Amino acid sequence: MTATNDLLIRAAFKQPIERTPVWVMRQAGRYLSEYRATRAKAGSFLELCKNVELAAEVTIQPLDLIEVDAVILFSDILTPLEGMGLELSFDPSPKFANPIRTQADIEALRVPDPDQGTPYVGKILNLLQKEVAGRVPIIGFAGAPFTLACYAIEGEGSKLFSKTKALFFDQPALAHKLMEKLTQMTINYLNYQIENGAQMVQLFDTWAGSLCPDDYDRFVFPYVQRIFAGIKQPGKVPKVYYINGGSHLLTRMARTGCDVVGLDWMSDLKEAKDLIGGQVGLQGNLDPNVLFAGEDYIRSQVKSILEKWGPQSGHIFNLGHGIDKDVNPDHLRAMVRAVKELSKR
Amino acid sequence: MTATNDLLIRAAFKQPIERTPVWVMRQAGRYLSEYRATRAKAGSFLELCKNVELAAEVTIQPLDLIEVDAVILFSDILTPLEGMGLELSFDPSPKFANPIRTQADIEALRVPDPDQGTPYVGKILNLLQKEVAGRVPIIGFAGAPFTLACYAIEGEGSKLFSKTKALFFDQPALAHKLMEKLTQMTINYLNYQIENGAQMVQLFDTWAGSLCPDDYDRFVFPYVQRIFAGIKQPGKVPKVYYINGGSHLLTRMARTGCDVVGLDWMSDLKEAKDLIGGQVGLQGNLDPNVLFAGEDYIRSQVKSILEKWGPQSGHIFNLGHGIDKDVNPDHLRAMVRAVKELSKR
Repeated sequence: MTATNDLLIRAAFKQPIERTPVWVMRQAGRYLSEYRATRAKAGSFLELCKNVELAAEVTIQPLDLIEVDAVILFSDILTPLEGMGLELSFDPSPKFANPIRTQADIEALRVPDPDQGTPYVGKILNLLQKEVAGRVPIIGFAGAPFTLACYAIEGEGSKLFSKTKALFFDQPALAHKLMEKLTQMTINYLNYQIENGAQMVQLFDTWAGSLCPDDYDRFVFPYVQRIFAGIKQPGKVPKVYYINGGSHLLTRMARTGCDVVGLDWMSDLKEAKDLIGGQVGLQGNLDPNVLFAGEDYIRSQVKSILEKWGPQSGHIFNLGHGIDKDVNPDHLRAMVRAVKELSKR
Repeated sequence: MTATNDLLIRAAFKQPIERTPVWVMRQAGRYLSEYRATRAKAGSFLELCKNVELAAEVTIQPLDLIEVDAVILFSDILTPLEGMGLELSFDPSPKFANPIRTQADIEALRVPDPDQGTPYVGKILNLLQKEVAGRVPIIGFAGAPFTLACYAIEGEGSKLFSKTKALFFDQPALAHKLMEKLTQMTINYLNYQIENGAQMVQLFDTWAGSLCPDDYDRFVFPYVQRIFAGIKQPGKVPKVYYINGGSHLLTRMARTGCDVVGLDWMSDLKEAKDLIGGQVGLQGNLDPNVLFAGEDYIRSQVKSILEKWGPQSGHIFNLGHGIDKDVNPDHLRAMVRAVKELSKR
């Protein structure tokens, strides 16, 4: 199905556009009272992820309430690890009851058929196809293997990822075996999302920014490259690659085979465009904190970012990180309105 | 007093050296059982900072135990804010009972005579001069104004610094008034440290890495530049400028007037050298997590970093961030030994 508003897809492929498309990471989230109401009906966060009707409902909320140019599957990057054999809970931050520590743990990991591992994801996407009804594109996503490995090894969030890095540094063969399995799972998972209705896919490598370039080259780059090479419908389904704190890795990100690099807000969009804008499109990159300021300031910063990219196609407006739960939705509406008005060609 | 081992000073000024000097951020810290014993005698962390004898004792411990090429004043970047009128406690993370929120709060801030605001700091440095007795240089330090502003406004640590940024974005005149006072305080404080025995000074701008380049240029750069211009004994006392997560700001950091840019571990030392190594020396930048790996791996990574800089002077070996409390001191000793052996000219 082609979306009526397919600005997102055209911008990702640098095809002509009438204005810059805009969506926001974590746009279906706690800053919306409507989200909080639906979430209360579902129970836990994980139950919401698996409740097909309610997950589709929160996915669509920002389309109606904020008038963004895309919806993104409501899910969490960690849910597919359940299908591999890890016991996931949210408390409220993610925890694994059986983190990966040994060779036996890694060998025991399954690479599931996504229809078995995450059956609800396909169903949510099918329902979204009906309910979005082609108004805007549907974005699918997955966590990148290194980021998943961090969570799986630490067993929870971490500031330093010491256990993960100790395993990667001291037992690289084992680390590569883990990355292999996570890579294969991710390829299957993203293709399954595309088969079920995802029209763009974003790979979130949230924690890869904690690696120095040498370690990124050894442990991350080849796997990300394989994922993008393994995704079906190249040239039709755009592939976005995002790293938080990745400004030291931009040239590498651009070579992974993605169509669009997702920038955090630390990189200057003009500098990033000069560096890699010839190879890929760019998505981003307003500092999420700007949404805590007044509407005039928000508008001035939207203008600044639009001017950094310039009039040609290839830019998707977004925040540089997920929207914070304490943001006033009116401020996000002001941002979206400003993008639409100020980017008209 | 000139230190017998003045490798640190010579490397900072790119003068000839026999080998690369090495010290470690947070080298006087919890990873050492000797530190934990002294700390237990002092009481709280803040009491240790103000106990002249015990603070000097922990300052010197890594010189004897790890054989580093410098000692760094044991203190915290936030202690001078007490002299400005803020009520500081550690629980264990820092808290201000009266955070800065209004114009009146900012106007009420004093710029104290450091001899009144932090009398113990001068005394610790005087005692260090006697006890270190010229074996190695003594490093003084301060927090940079934006980083201090983040703590003073949030009242505690933060992931996003939303309150700080909302104030800077919406009330820039007020923000600049706050930065003015913090800048003047910092200039006085660092000169006071130099008068009392500091032979190199490091400005920690830990949170400036959370700013996009435009905001850094507006809110941070001019103040850091003024601080470095205001520090006495240029050409004799080297000035180091460190940002955590600052790889997107390297060219700006090099123009602040510092002699040495302190790198986190995300920047590649070779790439940073090519970019700014002609203007400044570089300090860093081993991933602190490497110390959780085995000694062979540690040695291989020390070698890699030394090779990235090459044989000329201008590099000070350090971690890219403070050492973690769970590191085995033997691993740090292995790192220091490797630097000394592998960097011999």
